[in-house]
Amino acid sequence: MKARVYVTPKDGILDPQGKAVEHALTVLGFKQVKGVRVGRILEVVMDPEKGDTSKKTLNEMCEKLLANTIIESYRCELDPED
Amino acid sequence: MKARVYVTPKDGILDPQGKAVEHALTVLGFKQVKGVRVGRILEVVMDPEKGDTSKKTLNEMCEKLLANTIIESYRCELDPED
Repeated sequence: MKARVYVTPKDGILDPQGKAVEHALTVLGFKQVKGVRVGRILEVVMDPEKGDTSKKTLNEMCEKLLANTIIESYRCELDPED
Repeated sequence: MKARVYVTPKDGILDPQGKAVEHALTVLGFKQVKGVRVGRILEVVMDPEKGDTSKKTLNEMCEKLLANTIIESYRCELDPED
C-alpha cells in the first residue's frame, strides 16, 4: 500500500528556496512567474501485515516526523491499489 | 493562475533522503514502513497578462530549471481557478 504526503510551507512563512526559483525563472525569460513556493512530496510504501496503514497512522507520522507543523501544512493521500 | 509541479526521483535512482526518513520512521515504531521516496512540489503562480501560462510553457520551465530530467520525473497540473 502506497501513501503520498504533501508538505508545503504555510502562508506567510518565508520560503527562500521558492524565492530563488522564482528569480531564476524570471532570469530565464519566464516573466509571467509571480511567485513560487517549494514543498515536499513523500511517497511512503507500507506493509499492511506489519502494522496499521490507516490515515490516522499516516497523520501520526506527519505530526511526529514528516512535517514541521509550526511552519508547514500537510495533506495525506492513501492509494490502496499501489 | 496557479500551477503545481510534482518532481520525484525516477525508479532505480538512489534516494538517501528517503532512506533516512524510512529509517527514522521505523525507529519511531512505524514498523509497517517498507520504503520512502522524497520529491518536491513547486507551486508556481503566473500572471496570464505577462506571458503564456499553458502546460507547454510549464513543461519548458521543468526541462530548463525545475527538474533534473536525468534522475527525476515530473508531472504538471494547471489550476486555472486559483
